[in-house]
Amino acid sequence: MIDLRSDTVTKPTDEMRQLMANADVGDDVYGEDPTVNELEAYAAEMLGKEAGLFVTSGTQGNQAAILAHTRPGQEVIMDDESHVFLYEGAAAAAFAGVQSRTLPHDRGQIDLEQLEAAIRPEDVHFPETGLIWLENTHNRSGGSVLPLSYMMQVQQIAEKHNIPVHVDGARLFNAAVANNVSVKELSACADSVQFCLSKGLGAPIGSMLVGDKSFIDTARKKRKMLGGGLRQVGVIAAPALHSLKTSIYRLAEDHEHAKMLAKAFEDHTKLALINDVETNILYVDTTPTNKNADEWLELLKEHDIHANAFTSTTIRFVTHRDISKDDIEKVINTLKQIES
Amino acid sequence: MIDLRSDTVTKPTDEMRQLMANADVGDDVYGEDPTVNELEAYAAEMLGKEAGLFVTSGTQGNQAAILAHTRPGQEVIMDDESHVFLYEGAAAAAFAGVQSRTLPHDRGQIDLEQLEAAIRPEDVHFPETGLIWLENTHNRSGGSVLPLSYMMQVQQIAEKHNIPVHVDGARLFNAAVANNVSVKELSACADSVQFCLSKGLGAPIGSMLVGDKSFIDTARKKRKMLGGGLRQVGVIAAPALHSLKTSIYRLAEDHEHAKMLAKAFEDHTKLALINDVETNILYVDTTPTNKNADEWLELLKEHDIHANAFTSTTIRFVTHRDISKDDIEKVINTLKQIES
Amino acid sequence: MIDLRSDTVTKPTDEMRQLMANADVGDDVYGEDPTVNELEAYAAEMLGKEAGLFVTSGTQGNQAAILAHTRPGQEVIMDDESHVFLYEGAAAAAFAGVQSRTLPHDRGQIDLEQLEAAIRPEDVHFPETGLIWLENTHNRSGGSVLPLSYMMQVQQIAEKHNIPVHVDGARLFNAAVANNVSVKELSACADSVQFCLSKGLGAPIGSMLVGDKSFIDTARKKRKMLGGGLRQVGVIAAPALHSLKTSIYRLAEDHEHAKMLAKAFEDHTKLALINDVETNILYVDTTPTNKNADEWLELLKEHDIHANAFTSTTIRFVTHRDISKDDIEKVINTLKQIES
Amino acid sequence: MIDLRSDTVTKPTDEMRQLMANADVGDDVYGEDPTVNELEAYAAEMLGKEAGLFVTSGTQGNQAAILAHTRPGQEVIMDDESHVFLYEGAAAAAFAGVQSRTLPHDRGQIDLEQLEAAIRPEDVHFPETGLIWLENTHNRSGGSVLPLSYMMQVQQIAEKHNIPVHVDGARLFNAAVANNVSVKELSACADSVQFCLSKGLGAPIGSMLVGDKSFIDTARKKRKMLGGGLRQVGVIAAPALHSLKTSIYRLAEDHEHAKMLAKAFEDHTKLALINDVETNILYVDTTPTNKNADEWLELLKEHDIHANAFTSTTIRFVTHRDISKDDIEKVINTLKQIES
Repeated sequence: MIDLRSDTVTKPTDEMRQLMANADVGDDVYGEDPTVNELEAYAAEMLGKEAGLFVTSGTQGNQAAILAHTRPGQEVIMDDESHVFLYEGAAAAAFAGVQSRTLPHDRGQIDLEQLEAAIRPEDVHFPETGLIWLENTHNRSGGSVLPLSYMMQVQQIAEKHNIPVHVDGARLFNAAVANNVSVKELSACADSVQFCLSKGLGAPIGSMLVGDKSFIDTARKKRKMLGGGLRQVGVIAAPALHSLKTSIYRLAEDHEHAKMLAKAFEDHTKLALINDVETNILYVDTTPTNKNADEWLELLKEHDIHANAFTSTTIRFVTHRDISKDDIEKVINTLKQIES
Repeated sequence: MIDLRSDTVTKPTDEMRQLMANADVGDDVYGEDPTVNELEAYAAEMLGKEAGLFVTSGTQGNQAAILAHTRPGQEVIMDDESHVFLYEGAAAAAFAGVQSRTLPHDRGQIDLEQLEAAIRPEDVHFPETGLIWLENTHNRSGGSVLPLSYMMQVQQIAEKHNIPVHVDGARLFNAAVANNVSVKELSACADSVQFCLSKGLGAPIGSMLVGDKSFIDTARKKRKMLGGGLRQVGVIAAPALHSLKTSIYRLAEDHEHAKMLAKAFEDHTKLALINDVETNILYVDTTPTNKNADEWLELLKEHDIHANAFTSTTIRFVTHRDISKDDIEKVINTLKQIES
Repeated sequence: MIDLRSDTVTKPTDEMRQLMANADVGDDVYGEDPTVNELEAYAAEMLGKEAGLFVTSGTQGNQAAILAHTRPGQEVIMDDESHVFLYEGAAAAAFAGVQSRTLPHDRGQIDLEQLEAAIRPEDVHFPETGLIWLENTHNRSGGSVLPLSYMMQVQQIAEKHNIPVHVDGARLFNAAVANNVSVKELSACADSVQFCLSKGLGAPIGSMLVGDKSFIDTARKKRKMLGGGLRQVGVIAAPALHSLKTSIYRLAEDHEHAKMLAKAFEDHTKLALINDVETNILYVDTTPTNKNADEWLELLKEHDIHANAFTSTTIRFVTHRDISKDDIEKVINTLKQIES
Repeated sequence: MIDLRSDTVTKPTDEMRQLMANADVGDDVYGEDPTVNELEAYAAEMLGKEAGLFVTSGTQGNQAAILAHTRPGQEVIMDDESHVFLYEGAAAAAFAGVQSRTLPHDRGQIDLEQLEAAIRPEDVHFPETGLIWLENTHNRSGGSVLPLSYMMQVQQIAEKHNIPVHVDGARLFNAAVANNVSVKELSACADSVQFCLSKGLGAPIGSMLVGDKSFIDTARKKRKMLGGGLRQVGVIAAPALHSLKTSIYRLAEDHEHAKMLAKAFEDHTKLALINDVETNILYVDTTPTNKNADEWLELLKEHDIHANAFTSTTIRFVTHRDISKDDIEKVINTLKQIES
């Protein structure tokens, strides 16, 4: 099976499995799990922040960040297709009581004038602007990368108005690799960053939240309320730490594979690419073919190839560690065959 | 002083003041205030709903409606300049825990395809769509009117997906008068409607919420939690009832005055009208003049004319019961004088 | 009708009605209602605080105070029969997201050791203690008075732990009159105080919240979110201000009447007094008679006397401005007659 | 090191570690992790419920249950030392907006008359009673067991008033073993049950929530919002399933060890037992000795024995799988030595 539905589907390698089996563990609620302590310190250092916090998912990291940065009745400025707005069950409103001030965007970038204009002045009618939110890479734009220069400009606006910035960096390492900047540089533009270990990095479970010490202390308490305070968490922190230390270099391969796929769509099919491929995600439009998304998925499934429909005429493909060059070539051959 | 800042500034007439002084009252928490009971029944009947609830403001009516219709983690579809989104302190998120799904609009009208596409299918990642929100007239579009046909189309979509519709009708009577439809017809398109007594209708305090009986029972409890359960409320219900019975006919005059003003801006000034004037609100753009909004407000104030700046180059004028035809003529003469 | 159900049932006097009719008003959302501005300044001065805020009910004042003092996930220490816990629809949890840490009490007084022990140390499992809550007089204890010395001791503990104190003083003036202390002295023990104008003081609608300026600024914003930002509020602020200036002295009369009633219950009936009568509230237990609460209410109603059942064997009587000495004597005669 | 601080400190066995290394996994957000699917089905079957949900902690299971059973402004009846009230960061108020109606208890049992009296009738002032909460075994009472007969009586009251019952069964298996009833019988008294895999059962991470299918569907969505939707969760579900299948029988040993300790305290020390030991928890009072809790912990630590102070004069000891009979004997000898 060639599973291109998401980079979340990667399975732990044998090496990771052995690390789990041999992990040095303790009770993390008492702060005594040496492996998660190492992971948190390593991640913080890597992103140039004072402290780190292991969370069980990107959603948990994002929500803990909102709970720590804001208070009810505030507004969070974000683009109108951000993951936190579309795919996290409205938890920001339900748990943190904040209003999402969603703005139009181009490949994840909100126009800077519009962004600044959306910051609320003091008035008895208005929520206060409590947080500015960026997503890098931007999932709904097909893994597009926020340039470092853009992030720096957002940071300048935020600092001028004394508002914190959070980066949902579920795929931050893809952004760093694609644009050849360090995650430390990207992270320096934000007060807090969440990134996922279980996507391109391949760990079975987990994400990290980093920021300054007092922020992480607060987020740790919020994590406990969310039910994310674990016990012998070293068993999952061990493979996560390993993937963080060893898997970044190979994301370039995923990007290469995605570009190969993109070229194949253009060369051999009538499927229309929706996004320029910068990292590991492609969206294609089935409209120019005489089949809709479900029909395409059916056809691909016959060749044991799996992808996700996003609308009735849109399909998403994601490359990742469990997809080899051979797999990509097999997909390309299948595409040729289907469209011939 | 000619106060064109808002139709909320109207002062109670002598007649209203006498009604206050003579109001038959009781303790409304025990349901024993005869005047508010009459007002609630009258309003419900007028809008063709089973029951009514007196609230102290449009915001309280809107929030009680959200609290009664939805539960945390749901989404409310609304236009991205709706009053509830911009001017109610993010209370919908803070108190009801719902996410505002804001969509672009034209004069308060969301494209119907976009509206239906925004309704969420069932998925573990998604909030449920709990409510569709309309604002009529639409404040930020300059008091534009939602046509009855549009509201009926929205209702059809809502019914198809089994989602309730609320109308923020702070100025619903202006809409009815402008389009020559009854408020009953407009109200029939929604499950609940809030309208203000203290704007064009001229009452000193208060708004109404109407809907079916079980909805109003729930909203009454939510109103108590919001601190809106009053005691001898008849003293403010009496003038409100009077204004509801007697003031609708005269809204046409406010609309006429607003159109006179609009024509004067076009004929005698370089101020650019932003909206077609359908009811009692005008927005003008100061950019074509060599003065900004604050400078204009200063100039007008010298002639004892008051309006509100919305942005550094936008001014809002609102006509209402305390603005006579003579006042309008005085404003027009002042405009001529300033621009000459 | 002799209505002893609550001191909220008092109807506005002719004088108050004339004040309403003649009130100087403006739009309070713009801060332009001179009457409410005077009331807020007067109340603040009277209680020795920097600023005041008119609210439409005691519940609204209490909730605005909680919203301004706390943040979600904190705990409020209070007695386990406090009004805010029993009778405000759990709004403290629903809107402010705080946990009520209820403790046993004697006549509204929590044991000071228990109170201090309930303050939470820092721990990842624990909510922080965000507020200490007192109710004076204490409704469920029959209008019992918190002694000034007790309030000062609570304040000392609170200051030691850097936690604010709020007083729900719905009937604070009854407490002051009964114990012959000034409301300023009582208010000095707390960071914020709410008191009602519509109970013993006899105004038709309204309560006040007082505190320091920055607290009141925040509470004003929370009041707007609760829908308590009114327009020409002077029409109700005028009678409220009058009652505040003129009605305190006469609360002693209500207390006298309550004591007369208490004596009558003892002398002429088998109804057992539940509380020592310190102010204007009496609870009686019907168990020693062979009738339950509903049967007693029925009997009294035949003589046009009204009270409230609290449980199947408990009745509450409340004296107030609309109950004269003649009324009390009529009640006493009725009691004699019933029990003879 | 003999670690008697909590049964959460147990480390995974070699067998569990091998199961992790070999677990069959998939992406659980897509419902494709075979191991967690097996665990959920197994747990549901074992407790006689339709469906199960793996959660990362007892807190997450409890909070997902509250979010699924209730809505904001409701009340949850619980004992005043329940874990959810004391140790979950007030999440029930912060996230679910519910008020904890805490009642006094004896060994976790609320007086049934008091419990029924606390259920709220319909009234505009009152929160509705949305849930009744039991904790079995009861941590703060020293692991005391709720008898099956008591749970059945609570269920009867709940059914009479149409209110769901949740059991926080973090240590439900200890209760079952101690009283020689099946968990299925205990679970039959409740609509939903949460139990921990990472306490006495020894799994590194995780708890289970069980209930009927529609409840679990809702809870699954709430878990996603809490950030508990994991990916290749099989790596932790595998050891959890193993511990569930194999570890229950051995809890009797922990109880035996706790009783040995209790006897030793009585026979050889002046430390006063606070609770009858029914399961695996002991609380002792240091007051009769001339040392406080911290001094005792210091002394024990010198012999590499660890326990937790609960107050300045209270120590908690918990037995578990990583404590052997030899360890217990070593502790007893140490106690003799210290007190000699």
